[in-house]
Amino acid sequence: MPRRTVIVGGGAAGLGAAGGVKAADPDAEVTVYTEYEDIAYSPCGIPYVHGGEIEDFQRLFLAGKQAYVDAGIDVHYNTEVTALNIARKTVTAAAEGEVSYDRLVLGTGFDYADPGVPGGDLEGLYYVKNIREAMEWDKVLDRTKVAVVVDASPLGLEMVTALAHRGIETHLVDPNPWALGEMADPDIMAPVEESWREMGVKLHFNTTLEAFLGDGGHVRGVQTSAGEFPADVVVVCTHKTPNNALASAAGLRIGTTGGIVVDERMATSADGVFAAGDCTEIPHGFTQVPLQGLTGSHAYAQGKVAGTNAGGGSRTYQSVYVPWGTPAGKWVIGGASFGETTATALGIPYVLATAEGISRARYYPGVHKIKVKLLAEPGSLRLIGAQMVGGGEGIKERADFLAMAVKFGFTLHDLSTMENVYSPPIGALNEPIVVAATNGLNELAKAGKG
Amino acid sequence: MPRRTVIVGGGAAGLGAAGGVKAADPDAEVTVYTEYEDIAYSPCGIPYVHGGEIEDFQRLFLAGKQAYVDAGIDVHYNTEVTALNIARKTVTAAAEGEVSYDRLVLGTGFDYADPGVPGGDLEGLYYVKNIREAMEWDKVLDRTKVAVVVDASPLGLEMVTALAHRGIETHLVDPNPWALGEMADPDIMAPVEESWREMGVKLHFNTTLEAFLGDGGHVRGVQTSAGEFPADVVVVCTHKTPNNALASAAGLRIGTTGGIVVDERMATSADGVFAAGDCTEIPHGFTQVPLQGLTGSHAYAQGKVAGTNAGGGSRTYQSVYVPWGTPAGKWVIGGASFGETTATALGIPYVLATAEGISRARYYPGVHKIKVKLLAEPGSLRLIGAQMVGGGEGIKERADFLAMAVKFGFTLHDLSTMENVYSPPIGALNEPIVVAATNGLNELAKAGKG
Repeated sequence: MPRRTVIVGGGAAGLGAAGGVKAADPDAEVTVYTEYEDIAYSPCGIPYVHGGEIEDFQRLFLAGKQAYVDAGIDVHYNTEVTALNIARKTVTAAAEGEVSYDRLVLGTGFDYADPGVPGGDLEGLYYVKNIREAMEWDKVLDRTKVAVVVDASPLGLEMVTALAHRGIETHLVDPNPWALGEMADPDIMAPVEESWREMGVKLHFNTTLEAFLGDGGHVRGVQTSAGEFPADVVVVCTHKTPNNALASAAGLRIGTTGGIVVDERMATSADGVFAAGDCTEIPHGFTQVPLQGLTGSHAYAQGKVAGTNAGGGSRTYQSVYVPWGTPAGKWVIGGASFGETTATALGIPYVLATAEGISRARYYPGVHKIKVKLLAEPGSLRLIGAQMVGGGEGIKERADFLAMAVKFGFTLHDLSTMENVYSPPIGALNEPIVVAATNGLNELAKAGKG
Repeated sequence: MPRRTVIVGGGAAGLGAAGGVKAADPDAEVTVYTEYEDIAYSPCGIPYVHGGEIEDFQRLFLAGKQAYVDAGIDVHYNTEVTALNIARKTVTAAAEGEVSYDRLVLGTGFDYADPGVPGGDLEGLYYVKNIREAMEWDKVLDRTKVAVVVDASPLGLEMVTALAHRGIETHLVDPNPWALGEMADPDIMAPVEESWREMGVKLHFNTTLEAFLGDGGHVRGVQTSAGEFPADVVVVCTHKTPNNALASAAGLRIGTTGGIVVDERMATSADGVFAAGDCTEIPHGFTQVPLQGLTGSHAYAQGKVAGTNAGGGSRTYQSVYVPWGTPAGKWVIGGASFGETTATALGIPYVLATAEGISRARYYPGVHKIKVKLLAEPGSLRLIGAQMVGGGEGIKERADFLAMAVKFGFTLHDLSTMENVYSPPIGALNEPIVVAATNGLNELAKAGKG
């Protein structure tokens, strides 16, 4: 008898898991339930179709449904899973009733946090998530003159930039003093905010949303602590919260973030039940503080681990050091681990090493500035975090590297003496990370702490 | 009495050293001798001015001569140093006679290897080095219809691409079976060669230069093992050899490559004499094989170390893992440590891990393929080398990272489980390095060697 693995969720975690199961156990019977009519598309691309950078939504689809049939993965579309019974090892799928599993992987994803203000049932509130809905919303945006984006979250940054690119008068309403205020540092975000202003975006920081205002059932604006702002559309980009409904109702252990608690095998507290992606929480490698709402890349990798173990293989997922990056306004921002904002909030002491470097030779066309900020542990000078802002080139690859540098304990000395490619069209004489580390060591030496 | 440091050479090594001395000992008397009339420009930019990517030669100058005066660095221009006497601690500078030093830094650079064929004294042979000469040669290139580039060295790659961009019929003559044949692997170079052919470049591999052919004292072509090729100009891009003339005449220890032997303080075998840059040789961190002809970035960093120690400070320079990269044809190539060609030549066993990944989301405009090839030590699976070819984005930053990965002993497991930034405009769901490492592990597992 082949082992039956049921997967709840058709996103990156669920499909990563399906592939993981099949790789570990080609004979496994794999059923994926998704409440949507599509799988295998990139929801992360949606803001860039709205912004006009990508031509149309069809480009976001990765593989046809047949590819999953061919791989022996049985996807049940438009099928919500409404209950989980861990004692009986069953899930209840709409229209199918109770379905038994040998192994279960939960990839139930996230919900946007409820803004918790009146007017949440008005038409014209756009939660960016599903591609079919995005296609409809794109037509609405064609006739939108003024939009409000609620919260300068990672998605909020993308949507503000996209709407401004599209020529819509865009207002950003956010309760923090700067954008991405829960993770990014103000000096990193300052150039981004300046570029938004140049693009005509109206920024309303330190501003609390108080209500969605309606007219005949349709949103006509927002009420905030700084007054009323009219809008044809409000894009609600509140933070992601783990969708733990099934798991918590079934009694699985839920963590402080609301994410399902998993071990390094991505196993939950229930026998035979794994979880992956945005519905889980994962400890930060340095602080051990649980994190949720990571990227699709994390979800996919976690899914593969969960699926491999569900399929009888053995694979572990490690603590995360969270390289991140995104275009915002005319810049690209990014980093690894954490910046000063988080370090300060958690009471983690640090010394700084900063530089404003360049992406290629100073005289080569297309050269961009890159500001690099490194946080190191006092004494050991081990790297513990980094943030960057620059013209785009290499921010992603530097963030990937810096996350590994934190994970493997590289010090400012290691970074200061690292070699770098020098070729005028692609790299400057001095790599900005090296310059930052060297500057930091020089300042410590001057202060007698080197 | 301030200590007198004499520096021979006004390139990256010499000027890095001058700054290093002054940082360590602000009162030091620092004299730099250069045989040229300029300092502080970027010779590495010359091919890109010839190619039209950079507007004019003036852009290559970094700082005015006054900046060195202001920094208390006394530069003697057009002044060749003809002798070194380590017993008397003097150098002989043309027109100045014998000059004594307390500390000496040799930054005498490189010469192009003598092609060793008849006709070397003809006019029309271009050795790319000095910016004033490059300005004159640029006028010659304006009326050049056909050019031959001798040797597919790193400079040869740049010049072939530059001349082709400029619309000159360009022939490349090289004795190896593929371009950059002493360090790059054929699979990495294949797309580059294809793109050169698309640009109209005529490639003559496995072809030995036999003579420069002249007419009235001016070159009219080359004689090779594959016949005669006419040319208005021949660009001689033979490999760099350390300029060790002063050092070897004075009895300093010279290594197997012809480079001056230095310790980790960049000190030579003579008391008080340091050396840096292309005139030295430096051990490869993994093989311990001495290398010469590294980049301007290496020369500058070595100069700083030499200068710091000459100034009474303390700084060490480490073995090198040589991240490298350069545009070639329509691609960018790069790597770290070594590839299969070198590993095979040195008898170093390796296992391969390869992938063809992408630089950003598959659907995002500007996405490029990146081929990544990792070499790992059998058994330990420690990374020992890497080569890449791709559309440009992030090759430099990946090479920097991979050199550190070799230096710090990252394994294919470490690279396979590394996190990566996922943001459609700047990074794909799966980082190509991660995909390569994972593919390699999967193949080893299939072969029962994982």
